[in-house]
Amino acid sequence: MFKGTATALITPFNKEKELDIKNFEKLINDQIENNINALVILGTTGESPTINEKEKYEIIKKAIEITNKKIPIIVGTGSNDTKKILKNNKIAEELNADGLLIVTPYYNKTTQNGLYENYKYISQNTKLPIVLYNVPSRTGLNIEPKTTIKLLKNIENIIGIKEASGNISQINKILNEKPKNKYLYSGNDDQIIPIMANGGDGVISVISNLIPKQISKMTENILQKKYEEALEINNKYLNLMNMMFEEVNPIPIKYAMSLKYKTENTLRLPLISVTKELEEKIKKEMKRVEII
Amino acid sequence: MFKGTATALITPFNKEKELDIKNFEKLINDQIENNINALVILGTTGESPTINEKEKYEIIKKAIEITNKKIPIIVGTGSNDTKKILKNNKIAEELNADGLLIVTPYYNKTTQNGLYENYKYISQNTKLPIVLYNVPSRTGLNIEPKTTIKLLKNIENIIGIKEASGNISQINKILNEKPKNKYLYSGNDDQIIPIMANGGDGVISVISNLIPKQISKMTENILQKKYEEALEINNKYLNLMNMMFEEVNPIPIKYAMSLKYKTENTLRLPLISVTKELEEKIKKEMKRVEII
Amino acid sequence: MFKGTATALITPFNKEKELDIKNFEKLINDQIENNINALVILGTTGESPTINEKEKYEIIKKAIEITNKKIPIIVGTGSNDTKKILKNNKIAEELNADGLLIVTPYYNKTTQNGLYENYKYISQNTKLPIVLYNVPSRTGLNIEPKTTIKLLKNIENIIGIKEASGNISQINKILNEKPKNKYLYSGNDDQIIPIMANGGDGVISVISNLIPKQISKMTENILQKKYEEALEINNKYLNLMNMMFEEVNPIPIKYAMSLKYKTENTLRLPLISVTKELEEKIKKEMKRVEII
Amino acid sequence: MFKGTATALITPFNKEKELDIKNFEKLINDQIENNINALVILGTTGESPTINEKEKYEIIKKAIEITNKKIPIIVGTGSNDTKKILKNNKIAEELNADGLLIVTPYYNKTTQNGLYENYKYISQNTKLPIVLYNVPSRTGLNIEPKTTIKLLKNIENIIGIKEASGNISQINKILNEKPKNKYLYSGNDDQIIPIMANGGDGVISVISNLIPKQISKMTENILQKKYEEALEINNKYLNLMNMMFEEVNPIPIKYAMSLKYKTENTLRLPLISVTKELEEKIKKEMKRVEII
Repeated sequence: MFKGTATALITPFNKEKELDIKNFEKLINDQIENNINALVILGTTGESPTINEKEKYEIIKKAIEITNKKIPIIVGTGSNDTKKILKNNKIAEELNADGLLIVTPYYNKTTQNGLYENYKYISQNTKLPIVLYNVPSRTGLNIEPKTTIKLLKNIENIIGIKEASGNISQINKILNEKPKNKYLYSGNDDQIIPIMANGGDGVISVISNLIPKQISKMTENILQKKYEEALEINNKYLNLMNMMFEEVNPIPIKYAMSLKYKTENTLRLPLISVTKELEEKIKKEMKRVEII
Repeated sequence: MFKGTATALITPFNKEKELDIKNFEKLINDQIENNINALVILGTTGESPTINEKEKYEIIKKAIEITNKKIPIIVGTGSNDTKKILKNNKIAEELNADGLLIVTPYYNKTTQNGLYENYKYISQNTKLPIVLYNVPSRTGLNIEPKTTIKLLKNIENIIGIKEASGNISQINKILNEKPKNKYLYSGNDDQIIPIMANGGDGVISVISNLIPKQISKMTENILQKKYEEALEINNKYLNLMNMMFEEVNPIPIKYAMSLKYKTENTLRLPLISVTKELEEKIKKEMKRVEII
Repeated sequence: MFKGTATALITPFNKEKELDIKNFEKLINDQIENNINALVILGTTGESPTINEKEKYEIIKKAIEITNKKIPIIVGTGSNDTKKILKNNKIAEELNADGLLIVTPYYNKTTQNGLYENYKYISQNTKLPIVLYNVPSRTGLNIEPKTTIKLLKNIENIIGIKEASGNISQINKILNEKPKNKYLYSGNDDQIIPIMANGGDGVISVISNLIPKQISKMTENILQKKYEEALEINNKYLNLMNMMFEEVNPIPIKYAMSLKYKTENTLRLPLISVTKELEEKIKKEMKRVEII
Repeated sequence: MFKGTATALITPFNKEKELDIKNFEKLINDQIENNINALVILGTTGESPTINEKEKYEIIKKAIEITNKKIPIIVGTGSNDTKKILKNNKIAEELNADGLLIVTPYYNKTTQNGLYENYKYISQNTKLPIVLYNVPSRTGLNIEPKTTIKLLKNIENIIGIKEASGNISQINKILNEKPKNKYLYSGNDDQIIPIMANGGDGVISVISNLIPKQISKMTENILQKKYEEALEINNKYLNLMNMMFEEVNPIPIKYAMSLKYKTENTLRLPLISVTKELEEKIKKEMKRVEII
């Protein structure tokens, strides 16, 4: 699908919390100019749970139009209702998306066998390549390495996994046993170097919304075995990466984006804006690293 | 709302995984005959994430019709999209439900302040009484006691909480500080006695789908301070209660119900049927305690 | 061994951090006068890891002398070196103690089979009754219910367990399956009611150092099925109980004791005295509940 | 102190569970011949909790004699009684050891302030360089990055940390903020590459008891930025590394060593020998990777 950095793009809203397509376009162009390798739209960072069907259609359509196949567009189509995933996938296919990011069932959850059966069924009903998404801190459910390996080995159009468990030992196991032609992406910005050093292919990033040039350079460095240069970038922005998770993502990134890109700092319930305390910290750190 | 036992009712499907309203009716009548104090429909146990809008309408309507106000009907209307909760609540209101069970945001999650703002906004848009639902193992998010207390104290139509954190120390804190006229229900069948001994008001139960008479008797005993009688019931059925959580709920209960009530053992993806190993264990234990 | 409340007694030091036997005597007498059912000496609360062999001998000897068989003296003899446990047990036997409290191996840990073999070996080398002690937050090792039950069933002089896992579901399982003549004690002061309601026999308590009369009354109430009276005591002192664990026990209790009993607030490294912030909170709360 | 691989050496016992100094000597010589960069004796892997004072003296003396300053000898002197640490340190100094590995307090634990005060006091009482050891799964206590950084910054003879928390995000923070002249070593064999790629200096290893040549080569490769060669070694031995932790370390390594080096597979209580099931798995895997 891609090697390097994909951005899990935010969805900008205006003051009335309506879709702000103009800024969405501006952000995508900025991402492309700064050498991002792929875009993930309608992910968690894109607030997909609170975006309605009509808006989703518009977002996918627009993203594909703007990028114009210069870089792959991966659409987050996950749901805890498998029927809805199939519907979402149909739309992504129709609109000519390049791939699907499908999170495990959350809240209702399922068993390890259920995970396998569920992803198998989904994969049989789409032609698009699928990236699995494992994020137990949000879903209450971990895809165990055995299940991941089985899915990556047996199902052709499951082409990779975004691993956001944070569990390096688990990720190391997967990297060791997965087929060479399947991808593993870090789902945590502060684990890009460890995971890629262990054989990972890149990152699906939050912080690259804000600093696309730096993060794409960082993964490029790693792919070229320039670990010291990569570590320098990592260390410069590590505090900021961590701040993006001091309150639930995408609360902090939405504020940070508003400072740099003049988008509105608005989110839809159940999410609310960042606290004043974290606002201050973020602004100060962004000045320190000369983003603003 | 109620004291004692509410059943988080399963939603029976037929072999084709369509709604089986006939058995739904049969189960509700069985629950009423066996002295259940309230019914929760469209909860997690009721597989709400994979039930569509039309079906939800039918389920609520039917439940209210059948129970005919003999016992309260509480409708699970939670979602991680606040707008959808408001829509769900409207329907429950129209159909004359008695209360709402609203789980915290899951997957997208929110902050503690976000929880407060979200529930406040929801409560301002309905006249029905709301029971909060805290189940961090599914949502990745814990309502901290401070937030629970603030919600129960400040918002009139938030009338209680279903606590399924399993954290007795946390639950003890809430019970100590909550207003006397607000309710706390156990969300774990194996913690009914500890929570009620600490001042809790009852349980929203899974196992009472299968043994309504015994569980309603158990909570009645506790309310009458007959702890020894309650403990006897608890100890008789504890193994079975635990088996209902050896695979993700409602997978095991749906199998157990099929044995006793001849409902179909069918679930919708991402959930799948119980493994053969657990089937055997459940059947054997149900025979041992003479349910079948 | 006992039903009701045992105090895990602190070891008072003077300003020079030497053993303060005079105050030790005073505290024991106060405990007896206030109807405590048993005393545990040289437990974690008694700072046993930093008390030398000579001091341990003196402490055991003195405690047995003072109590003069009015209430049982249980000696903490646990170690992660089994040979040392055997030595400690010999001394306790010689000095005529009534029982032994033996924590699981910590730091080096062991397997579930290792736990069984270890306790079996220990029990074969002493005539004294043994109380197991499970506290995974300190040891990094949980005694699984299966192992606990096997030990309680098969080994005669293993007469009970102090359960401080905080896991009520686990404790409920043990209570359901253990032999009737074996004991289960709560190791958490805020879980006395839940555990005893589920069939537990009492508590080995920290807070009863400070309020022996109230806690022994509370467990007495529960044993007499007066749950409401017990809950009233629990609720009055719950904040204070919780404060005793805001910094590592016995740091806060040692400060609280210094306020009420005029003992020195001194601990031996690696432990240090309570922070000023918690000092203030404790003092204020002790005034509110009229201890000082 | 060192860069690359230090082995946390096992302590061989004979059939009677007495110190087997002859094999100890043989193992050390094998380690030196295979380019190990340093040796840690009397660590957890060396079963220090069950080795008496006399044996400890002999072990330190012998190790220093045999290595004869070709590589540094680091002595595990940690205890949860600070006085004992000081005594242990004196002996290590007298016998001319090169450094000390000092684990945080375990079981009695302490606060973050307590950690700082404790290590400060210890460091003021020895001239030897100290490596901190953080292993929360054994101690129940995490050294938070803030405390680690404060210790590494303020105290000269605290020269590094062995980080076995497994928490890569935490380790990344420390690596980013620690003084350049202080060391961070991985305490987990399956995290060598991730940690060193992030700026770590090497590993204190269990598996290098068994395959010293391969692990020292692996860290050498990383230090020379030959990540692919390192990853190849990692991937070949990853299964075996993981097996060493399927039962509590050093249970499995002691069995593996008996197969390759003909040492006795004996451990002292509370530890017991590996189960038959894991024996079979280890033997099979050792054959697969051609160790035996």
